[in-house]
Amino acid sequence: MPKVAIVMGSVSDLDVVKPTIEILKKFDVEAEVRVISAHRTPDMAHDFAKSAIDNNIEVIICAAGKAAHLGGVIAAYTPLPVIGLPVKSSTMDGLDSLLSMVQMPSGIPVACVAINGGLNAGLLAVQILSVKYPTLMKKMQDYKISMAEKIKNEDEKLQKELN
Amino acid sequence: MPKVAIVMGSVSDLDVVKPTIEILKKFDVEAEVRVISAHRTPDMAHDFAKSAIDNNIEVIICAAGKAAHLGGVIAAYTPLPVIGLPVKSSTMDGLDSLLSMVQMPSGIPVACVAINGGLNAGLLAVQILSVKYPTLMKKMQDYKISMAEKIKNEDEKLQKELN
Amino acid sequence: MPKVAIVMGSVSDLDVVKPTIEILKKFDVEAEVRVISAHRTPDMAHDFAKSAIDNNIEVIICAAGKAAHLGGVIAAYTPLPVIGLPVKSSTMDGLDSLLSMVQMPSGIPVACVAINGGLNAGLLAVQILSVKYPTLMKKMQDYKISMAEKIKNEDEKLQKELN
Amino acid sequence: MPKVAIVMGSVSDLDVVKPTIEILKKFDVEAEVRVISAHRTPDMAHDFAKSAIDNNIEVIICAAGKAAHLGGVIAAYTPLPVIGLPVKSSTMDGLDSLLSMVQMPSGIPVACVAINGGLNAGLLAVQILSVKYPTLMKKMQDYKISMAEKIKNEDEKLQKELN
Amino acid sequence: MPKVAIVMGSVSDLDVVKPTIEILKKFDVEAEVRVISAHRTPDMAHDFAKSAIDNNIEVIICAAGKAAHLGGVIAAYTPLPVIGLPVKSSTMDGLDSLLSMVQMPSGIPVACVAINGGLNAGLLAVQILSVKYPTLMKKMQDYKISMAEKIKNEDEKLQKELN
Amino acid sequence: MPKVAIVMGSVSDLDVVKPTIEILKKFDVEAEVRVISAHRTPDMAHDFAKSAIDNNIEVIICAAGKAAHLGGVIAAYTPLPVIGLPVKSSTMDGLDSLLSMVQMPSGIPVACVAINGGLNAGLLAVQILSVKYPTLMKKMQDYKISMAEKIKNEDEKLQKELN
Amino acid sequence: MPKVAIVMGSVSDLDVVKPTIEILKKFDVEAEVRVISAHRTPDMAHDFAKSAIDNNIEVIICAAGKAAHLGGVIAAYTPLPVIGLPVKSSTMDGLDSLLSMVQMPSGIPVACVAINGGLNAGLLAVQILSVKYPTLMKKMQDYKISMAEKIKNEDEKLQKELN
Amino acid sequence: MPKVAIVMGSVSDLDVVKPTIEILKKFDVEAEVRVISAHRTPDMAHDFAKSAIDNNIEVIICAAGKAAHLGGVIAAYTPLPVIGLPVKSSTMDGLDSLLSMVQMPSGIPVACVAINGGLNAGLLAVQILSVKYPTLMKKMQDYKISMAEKIKNEDEKLQKELN
Repeated sequence: MPKVAIVMGSVSDLDVVKPTIEILKKFDVEAEVRVISAHRTPDMAHDFAKSAIDNNIEVIICAAGKAAHLGGVIAAYTPLPVIGLPVKSSTMDGLDSLLSMVQMPSGIPVACVAINGGLNAGLLAVQILSVKYPTLMKKMQDYKISMAEKIKNEDEKLQKELN
Repeated sequence: MPKVAIVMGSVSDLDVVKPTIEILKKFDVEAEVRVISAHRTPDMAHDFAKSAIDNNIEVIICAAGKAAHLGGVIAAYTPLPVIGLPVKSSTMDGLDSLLSMVQMPSGIPVACVAINGGLNAGLLAVQILSVKYPTLMKKMQDYKISMAEKIKNEDEKLQKELN
Repeated sequence: MPKVAIVMGSVSDLDVVKPTIEILKKFDVEAEVRVISAHRTPDMAHDFAKSAIDNNIEVIICAAGKAAHLGGVIAAYTPLPVIGLPVKSSTMDGLDSLLSMVQMPSGIPVACVAINGGLNAGLLAVQILSVKYPTLMKKMQDYKISMAEKIKNEDEKLQKELN
Repeated sequence: MPKVAIVMGSVSDLDVVKPTIEILKKFDVEAEVRVISAHRTPDMAHDFAKSAIDNNIEVIICAAGKAAHLGGVIAAYTPLPVIGLPVKSSTMDGLDSLLSMVQMPSGIPVACVAINGGLNAGLLAVQILSVKYPTLMKKMQDYKISMAEKIKNEDEKLQKELN
Repeated sequence: MPKVAIVMGSVSDLDVVKPTIEILKKFDVEAEVRVISAHRTPDMAHDFAKSAIDNNIEVIICAAGKAAHLGGVIAAYTPLPVIGLPVKSSTMDGLDSLLSMVQMPSGIPVACVAINGGLNAGLLAVQILSVKYPTLMKKMQDYKISMAEKIKNEDEKLQKELN
Repeated sequence: MPKVAIVMGSVSDLDVVKPTIEILKKFDVEAEVRVISAHRTPDMAHDFAKSAIDNNIEVIICAAGKAAHLGGVIAAYTPLPVIGLPVKSSTMDGLDSLLSMVQMPSGIPVACVAINGGLNAGLLAVQILSVKYPTLMKKMQDYKISMAEKIKNEDEKLQKELN
Repeated sequence: MPKVAIVMGSVSDLDVVKPTIEILKKFDVEAEVRVISAHRTPDMAHDFAKSAIDNNIEVIICAAGKAAHLGGVIAAYTPLPVIGLPVKSSTMDGLDSLLSMVQMPSGIPVACVAINGGLNAGLLAVQILSVKYPTLMKKMQDYKISMAEKIKNEDEKLQKELN
Repeated sequence: MPKVAIVMGSVSDLDVVKPTIEILKKFDVEAEVRVISAHRTPDMAHDFAKSAIDNNIEVIICAAGKAAHLGGVIAAYTPLPVIGLPVKSSTMDGLDSLLSMVQMPSGIPVACVAINGGLNAGLLAVQILSVKYPTLMKKMQDYKISMAEKIKNEDEKLQKELN
C-alpha cells in the first residue's frame, strides 16, 4: 500500500487538510497525518524529512499559512516530491501563503496547488504515485470519468429545471 | 529510460524551458519537447494528452504565459501528473500566468512551480519519476549534495574576500 | 429569435448567472443554459463549442471561477464571440478568475466583463446581437433610457429627503 | 463593408492599436481611427458616440491607459458594443487600466481584452461582426486554421532542432 | 454660505457619503447631494458639471465604486476642484475604485481620498474652501484641536485602565 | 500672487516634481520648492508646516516615495489643503507610495493624485486656488480648451495619415 | 525591569495589541501602553518619542492601520529600535498598513512584523531586549521549547485521533 | 566590539547587502558575512543558527529573495533577534520576498525592513545593539543629525538654484 505524509503547520489547518485525507483513503493510499511547524519545531521537521524515505513515505504534502515555509523546509531535507498546499489565513487572502510556497528558488521545487486546495493536493499525490503504481493510474482514470458523470448529471438536471 | 514531455504554448517560451531541457538531460531523462497552444491548437492539445500514456510519457511539464490554460487543458485529458510552469509575459509580471495555473478548481490539479522556474520544473519531474526509479532518487540525492557544495564554496570564497 | 448560450463551469456559479438569464429573457433572447466544466468534462466542452453554430447559437457566455479556463477553451473551438464572466471564489477575491479570463494570449479573444458581472454579460450579448438584429438595438436604447429614468428618480427622491 | 471605430485616448497609444488596425484590414473591415480623450475632449467623445450609429459604425474599440474611462464614457452614449483595450502605462503595469475598464458597474458593459491586447481587440470586433456577416465568420474560421498551422510548423521545426 | 456638491454614482453609496454630509453640516457648509451615474445618466453628469459654477458650487465630491469614472467625467466638464471618494464594492476590496479615481491621466486631476473615506472627503472640501473663507480655516484649526483632545482623553483613559 | 509650496522628500524626486513647478509658473502661481524629509528632518517638517500660513502659502504639494509619510506629516500640522504626489520607487511600482498617501485615516485628509502625476498635482493646486482667485479659474478654463485643441489636432493629423 | 512602550494610533487597535501586552507581562517586561495618533496628535507623538529614552523606554512598538505612519513618525524622533505592527483595517486587507510601515526609506528603519501580528511584536521586543538582558534570553529559549512542546502534543493527539 | 551576522541566501544578493556591510563598518560593528541557503544548505543554516550565540553574534540579518525562508529558518533555531531583508528578484517585484519574510506566523518573529533595504537592515541592527551599548546609541543620534544636515544642505542648494 503506497504511503503519503500530510504535514500541517498548525492544527488549525486541519479543515483544509480533511479533503486530502479523505481522497487518499478513497484511493486506498495510506496517509500519515502530522502536525509539524517549520518554525516552532524545526528539529521535528528535520527528523521527519530525513527519515521519510526510511518510513516508506513516497510523497509529502505540506499545508501551511502566512509565511508558509513548511514545504520548502521539508523539501530541503528530502529528495521526495513535496506538494505545497497554501492555507488562507486571516489576512492577505492566502496570497502570502501562495507566494511563500510557489516561488521557491532554483534547486528545491515545491509542487504547489491552489490556496485551500486540499482535494487537489491529495489527487496530485495520487497522480504522482500512479506513475509507479498502475492500479492507481486506473483508479484515477475512473475518478475522472465519475467527475465527468457528475457534471453531466448536473447539466441535465439544470436544463430540465430551466427549459 | 524514463520520459518527460515538455510542452510550451509558444516558441517564445523556449528560453524559460531551456533549463528544464538541460536538467532532464543531466539526469538522463528523455525529454520530448513540443509547441502546442491550448487555444490555437486545441485539437493538438487533445491528441497529445490522450496519447501521452501510449507514448510512454510519465510526466508532462506545461509552460505558458498570460491566461495560461495549457496545464489545465492537458490535465483535463490525462491522468498523468502535470507540472505547470508559469511564464512571465510583458504585462502583470507573471501574476496572471501564476494564478491561471495554480488556482485550478477541485478535481484536476496542476503542480505549479515558480514563475519562470524552468530548472525547478525539471527537478520536480525528476523527483516524481524517482518515486518509481530508484536510480533517479540516488541521483537527486547527489544533486542536492552538489548544490550544497556549491553554496559552501561560495560562502568560503566570500568570507576570504571580505575578512 | 436570437439565441445565446450561457455555460457555467459548476452549478455553484448559478447565482452569478441568474441575472444573465433574466436580462436575456427581458430582451426576448433565447438562452440555452448549460453546466460544462473545461477541466472535468473537456469532451463536453469540445462538443458543445464545435456544434454551437449548428445549434443556432450566436453568442456564448462562459462563467467560471478560480483558474477560469472555460472561456478560453470554448473560444478555442468556435469562431463565435465568447463573453467571459469571471466568478469570485472563496480566495483571491476574483482576481484569479479575472486574470485567467481577460489575459487571453493573441489570437483567441475572450470579451471579459466585471467579476460577478452577470447582468453585464447578458447586456453585452444583447449588444453584440443588436449589430445584426435592429429590434434588439431599439430595445437596448429603451433600456438605457429606463436606467437613466431610474437614476433620475432616485436622485429626485434623495434630494427631497435631504433638503 | 462593415465598419469599426478604433478610438484611443492619446496618440501615445498608437503602438498598441497598430495590430488592431492591421488585423481589421486583413479581414477587409473598415477602420475609422480616432484620437479622443474622455477627459480632455469630453464633448468630442459625446459627439462621436452619439453619431456612431449614423456614421455606420457597428463596433467601437476604445484603447486607453491609467484611469481608463474612455470605454465607459463611449458606452454610456451608445447602444453599440464597446470593446475595451487597456493600455499599459509607466506605472502599475496596466492593472489600473484593466480594472478601470473591466470592472464596469451594472448596466453599461465594456468587453475587455488583455492589457496591450491590440490584436485580440481587432479579432473580437471581427467575431462580433461575424454574427451578422457570414463572410467574416468564414474568414475567422480560416484565420483560426492558419494560426493552428503556424503553431504546428513551429512545433515540427522545434522537434527537428531538438531531437 | 459656501457650497459643496456631493455626487454619488448610486444610492447604494449613501452610507459611505453620510459622514461627508454630516461633517459639512458641522462646518456650516451647504451640501447639495445628488445621485448621478457617469454611465447610466451621462447627460445629467454633463449638465450638472457644466452648470456647477453657475449654481454657486465651489467644490465637487464624487463617490463611486468599481470602475469609478464619476470623478473623471465630472472633472472633464468643469474647472472646479473635484474630490474623488472611492467606494469599496463587493469584489476587489476597493482597489478597482481607487485606481479608477486616483490614476487620472495628465491634464484632469481628481483629488482622491481613502477608500470609503467619507469623512475625509468632507474635510478636504472644507480645507479647499478655507483657502477662500477665513472662518472655515479657523474652524478647521479648532476641529484639529478637538480631534487631538479626543485622542488625549482616550490615551488617559486607557492608561488608567491598564496601569 | 498666490503661493504654493512644493515639498519633496528627497532631491531624487525632483524629476517628478519638475512638471509641477512648470505648470505653476505657467499659471503665474508662485512656487516655493523645498526638500524636507518627514523621517530624516522631522523638525524641519514641523517648522515648515506650522509656519506655512504665516509664509502666505495657501496649498502644499508633498512628493514622496516608498512609505510616503510626508503628506500625512505635513497635514498633521496645518489646516491648509495638502496634495499628495506619490513617487514611483525602485520596487513595488509606486503602490507603496500610493497607499501610504491615499489611505489616510479619518480626520487628516491628503488629496492624492496619480503615481508620478507631477503635472496633475500642479493643476489641482491651481484648481484649489481658483476657488478664491477668479483669474485662475478663467485661466484653467482656457487651459482645458487648449488641451482639447491639442487632442483635436492630433486626431486630425492621425486621420490624415491613416486614411 | 526592562520597559517597552506600546503605542497604538487609535483605541480601535487595542484588540490587535492585547497579545502584545500579555506576552510582555509573561516575560516580566514592563509595558507602557499609549494611544497616540501620528496625524491627530503629532505633538504628542513628538513629545513621546523625544522623551522615550529619559522615560527608560528601550524598545517602542507602534500599531497602526491604513496609511500607517506612526512607526515612521516615532522613529524619526528617537534612536531607539521601533517595531511596526501593521493593523488590518476595513479595506485593503492590511496591505496598506504593511507597505506604509515596512517600505521605510533609507535612514530610518522600522522593524515590521506580520499584519495583526501582536504576539510577534511583543516577542520581537523581548528578543531585542534579550541582547542586553541575559535573563530574557534564557526565558526566550524556554518559551521556544514550550512552543515546540505544544506542537508536539498536538501532533501526538492528532495521530491518536486519526490512526 | 559588538558583532552582527549578515547571511544571504545566494551570492547574487551581495549587491543588496553591500550597504549593510558598509554601515556596520561605519558604526564599528563587526560583521560576519555568510552565504547560507535555507533550502540548498539547510544543515549549514541549522549549524550557523545553533552556534550563533556561542560565536558572540548578537543580531542576525538574513537577506533572501523569492520564497524567502532564510529569516524564518534561522529564527527557528535561535532566540537572537533576526532581521529580514527581502531581496527583489526577477519576477513579482519583491512582493514574494516581502510576504515570505514579514508574514511570519505567531511565535517566531522576523523584523522585516523594506525590499532591497540593505542600509536600513544595518541601521536596525545598530539600533538593536544600542539598547545594550550606549556608545552605539550616541553614534546613532549623531548619524541622525548628519542625515538631517545632508537634507538641509540639499534643501538650501535647491532653493538657491530654483529661486
